[in-house]
Amino acid sequence: MTDEELIREVQRKWFQAAACGDAAAIVELMTDDVIFLTPGKAPFGRTEFIDSFKLMKERVAISCDGEYTEIIVNGDWACATARLNVTVTPKNGGDSKHLSGYAMSVFRRMPDGKWRLSRDANLLMPQSL
Amino acid sequence: MTDEELIREVQRKWFQAAACGDAAAIVELMTDDVIFLTPGKAPFGRTEFIDSFKLMKERVAISCDGEYTEIIVNGDWACATARLNVTVTPKNGGDSKHLSGYAMSVFRRMPDGKWRLSRDANLLMPQSL
Repeated sequence: MTDEELIREVQRKWFQAAACGDAAAIVELMTDDVIFLTPGKAPFGRTEFIDSFKLMKERVAISCDGEYTEIIVNGDWACATARLNVTVTPKNGGDSKHLSGYAMSVFRRMPDGKWRLSRDANLLMPQSL
Repeated sequence: MTDEELIREVQRKWFQAAACGDAAAIVELMTDDVIFLTPGKAPFGRTEFIDSFKLMKERVAISCDGEYTEIIVNGDWACATARLNVTVTPKNGGDSKHLSGYAMSVFRRMPDGKWRLSRDANLLMPQSL
């Protein structure tokens, strides 16, 4: 597979892990020092992401889809822009929330040869469908 | 100057050009193929940025400050995260708007040796002070 295909594969695995609430699988897809940026919130790292992910999976089902509109590979780094849709459905009933928008991500190819998410700026906003 | 210092210099020039409404100066700081991502909006390029910048400078004064919390240089690429504050003040009176938050930017060192903004994810949100 090309680097671009490998990075699209990371995204596919990410969507699957999110849908299954599989924290162990999703943690494998990011670097130890990953930083997440989201609007209106201070940057946070892997521990906070996983803690929040584990809390959310008890309360909601998450469904993600979308695709990269651009992947630029530069050696062991890549910069990728994705158009994403996320649906969050409460497990105890209630209306689903829809978010959509773009995310810009930096991936790094680690010494084990695997591409992992290293920096992520998530610009998704609530959407009324 | 180190690459990190050169990139901080681009930011300083950007703030100055924004404050002065200097479209010719700000366009020099970005690549031809720059892409800007902002929450709730489709990605846009240099022409749309400059058109919008020229319209805004007629109506408002823009003041930016902030600093990079991280700059990672990888050859002719760099990924930088900034904490930013922007104040937009109507020229015909009226209250200022304050925005604050983070931006993640990819810079490229171009053949002329200058670092220029290539991709920018701007997560600033309106702030009540």
